[in-house]
Amino acid sequence: MIRLYYAPGACSLAVHIALEEAGAEFELERVDFRAGAQRSPAYLAVNPKGRVPTLQTDRGVLTECVAILAWIAQSWPEARLAPLEDAWAFAQMQSFNAFLASSVHPAWAHVSRPERYADGEAAAAAMRNKGPEALGGFYRIIEERFADGQPWANGEAYTVSDPYLAVITGWIMGRALLDFAQFPAAADHRRRTLERPAAQRALAREGRAQG
Amino acid sequence: MIRLYYAPGACSLAVHIALEEAGAEFELERVDFRAGAQRSPAYLAVNPKGRVPTLQTDRGVLTECVAILAWIAQSWPEARLAPLEDAWAFAQMQSFNAFLASSVHPAWAHVSRPERYADGEAAAAAMRNKGPEALGGFYRIIEERFADGQPWANGEAYTVSDPYLAVITGWIMGRALLDFAQFPAAADHRRRTLERPAAQRALAREGRAQG
Repeated sequence: MIRLYYAPGACSLAVHIALEEAGAEFELERVDFRAGAQRSPAYLAVNPKGRVPTLQTDRGVLTECVAILAWIAQSWPEARLAPLEDAWAFAQMQSFNAFLASSVHPAWAHVSRPERYADGEAAAAAMRNKGPEALGGFYRIIEERFADGQPWANGEAYTVSDPYLAVITGWIMGRALLDFAQFPAAADHRRRTLERPAAQRALAREGRAQG
Repeated sequence: MIRLYYAPGACSLAVHIALEEAGAEFELERVDFRAGAQRSPAYLAVNPKGRVPTLQTDRGVLTECVAILAWIAQSWPEARLAPLEDAWAFAQMQSFNAFLASSVHPAWAHVSRPERYADGEAAAAAMRNKGPEALGGFYRIIEERFADGQPWANGEAYTVSDPYLAVITGWIMGRALLDFAQFPAAADHRRRTLERPAAQRALAREGRAQG
């Protein structure tokens, strides 16, 4: 059995949507961030990093969105969630997911959780001020991917990159950190990704009504 | 032909070492960070993110260490740089590489390049102060991987995770941000990884004498 440890709306939502897109059977286990459950001894025994997502399977525990999303695509090949036959195209998908994980997500975290990175309100304010500049640069790169009219992050075919990008776009929209009139393709991508039935099921199970 | 765009000692060194370990033929193209070459129109045309590593191949351009390292392992299977036959073990390797890329490397960047994330010397100092705390937490997790005596980051077999970890450990040692008497396995791992002939060739080509 597969169990996904998640926090509602966190990047674990991308994994949750991917599991739904795959048609996987899985259990959900909510980690209550407001109660600090990610720092509880019980959770740290599962994932010493104290983050979500964590995927528990018969083989053990797997962490990090980039690795989990790729593994889901490989484990449910009939769902066609990645270009599994072409190592180069797969690497391009992984490159985009790694960019989301190591550049875009940290830039968001600088705005949303500056206390992780510096003590004091002045430093936090300085990080929150600078964040939108970095995010704007990253979304210019993301918007450019869609410039030739491709519907999905990696081209004509939907992949596990799509829920990952859509979830992060949603965070930034929710705090109005960027003017998405400048990034219409990214905004439209989020809408189309989240209106798919699999995404709607995941959103409903996480208690999030957003479309 | 493969061309690696690199900056000496940057995380592109991990890719450089992996190419040497693979026995690949490749050209090196130095990007002069001190001269701001990563922001030149010529380089941004190759990699709009303005970072290294960038790998140019007959298929196009590939960026992000996590994706490039996995692709090298898949493209030179005879070099046995990853557990290619086992999707779960491969995902575990990717999980570790993603952790390096999205947690450890950013924590290092907060110390080494705080001006990317906040304006003003006070905020930069606050980020530099907090950085070692985050890095220490991450290196406790890394040290724990070696607690059962395994020689390499992912177990008994050397993988592309090893040069990646060794390069990052070297950055942190070089600035004495952590007391590596607390992380002897990580320190020893770095030494063993860099003394391999492939790593020595890469270090020599990048003009770095360190062992």
